[in-house]
Amino acid sequence: MGSVGESDKYLLNRHKESHFTAGEIVRDIIIGVSDGLTVPFALAAGLSGANASSSIILTAGIAEVAAGAISMGLGGYLAAKSEADHYARELQREQEEIDTIPDTEAAEVAEILAEYGVEPHEYGPVVNALRKNPKAWLDFMMKFELGLEKPDPKRPLQSAFTIAVSYVLGGLVPLLPYMFIPVAQKAVVASVIVTILALLIFGFAKGYFTGSKPVWSALQTALIGAIASAAAFGMAKAVQG
Amino acid sequence: MGSVGESDKYLLNRHKESHFTAGEIVRDIIIGVSDGLTVPFALAAGLSGANASSSIILTAGIAEVAAGAISMGLGGYLAAKSEADHYARELQREQEEIDTIPDTEAAEVAEILAEYGVEPHEYGPVVNALRKNPKAWLDFMMKFELGLEKPDPKRPLQSAFTIAVSYVLGGLVPLLPYMFIPVAQKAVVASVIVTILALLIFGFAKGYFTGSKPVWSALQTALIGAIASAAAFGMAKAVQG
Repeated sequence: MGSVGESDKYLLNRHKESHFTAGEIVRDIIIGVSDGLTVPFALAAGLSGANASSSIILTAGIAEVAAGAISMGLGGYLAAKSEADHYARELQREQEEIDTIPDTEAAEVAEILAEYGVEPHEYGPVVNALRKNPKAWLDFMMKFELGLEKPDPKRPLQSAFTIAVSYVLGGLVPLLPYMFIPVAQKAVVASVIVTILALLIFGFAKGYFTGSKPVWSALQTALIGAIASAAAFGMAKAVQG
Repeated sequence: MGSVGESDKYLLNRHKESHFTAGEIVRDIIIGVSDGLTVPFALAAGLSGANASSSIILTAGIAEVAAGAISMGLGGYLAAKSEADHYARELQREQEEIDTIPDTEAAEVAEILAEYGVEPHEYGPVVNALRKNPKAWLDFMMKFELGLEKPDPKRPLQSAFTIAVSYVLGGLVPLLPYMFIPVAQKAVVASVIVTILALLIFGFAKGYFTGSKPVWSALQTALIGAIASAAAFGMAKAVQG
């Protein structure tokens, strides 16, 4: 069992990184489209139940999509930046601990391995190997003591953009009928049909990409849309009534 | 360096679990309040700029809060359930690999440790120790190969409830003025004041709890609210024509 070659390690890390980022982009699309399809749809359906005109519904719907895309997009940006800052702070702290209290850090490595039933005479050489290689030791503590992965600097902007665009695309689906059908009570019928279809398709795709049962995922997603619009409908009637 | 005692390990794990859950509850509150304060505020401000009445604004706002709380709350539920299902599937797969292809799994352990500059004669005893303790080996692979933590079964419901309630509480802040001031153009002034205050306070608290600079966090949070409402205002004006 020879040690893993440098170029293999490089390829392995790049492969892991691209899997990591692709998963996060899918997650951001799911976040954006889930709420983008559901909330504008429910808002529009609720308002049409309260006898608002297509004009008011469109005004409220488009304003909500703009606000939602920005709030969620910038929220995603701040969350990713916060993770990156957190990683940087923890990295610095671990480096200081390795520099100033190496014996305590070495004891932490021992403790981590001891949790898996490894005896001192078995983990001793590993601890010593790490002590001789400060850079590897730091990486080990970040991953195995703190469970933190080095974040991709592209992520904050990527996340913001992905979530915002997904929310806008999701939100346009239920609102398009109101752009073409001036009578709200007719537009809402078209909106319900296209949105439920979109929710089923999106839910299916979500299940497929996340490894859950796609049909069940499709039904769950459509059901959330139904519950949200029933609630919006009910609240709108209550406020108007 | 003796091995860590059983009761110490139990206390250590319980301590880690409560830190983990508290962090997730804070994260869910941040998710709910961030959007709850921002989107209903922006929607209401946008509609008042388009000369809608307090009645319409309140109808749209309350409907949006209901829809948003349900969409985000149930979204949080599904996300947490999905993580739990993913963990269960990966656990089963790792167990099968340990049972059917132990040599490959042992090579994976070697590869993990080799990445940190640990030589075969140094990590060999650790690999053997794990091979003799299948339960510890499984835990090791879950954590160090896949980076997965055992999820708390309470999390899905807890997450849904926390996010939904946070969104509702956040959303009520900008809408309350419209409940008491029938002239929308006056209500919007009160709404802007209370919401900006709430955004600053919430942003400060968020920074404090996540270890970022609280003043900078307060300003960022208020700025997102301002940008979102400017966008909603602009879109509402554009649609109204």
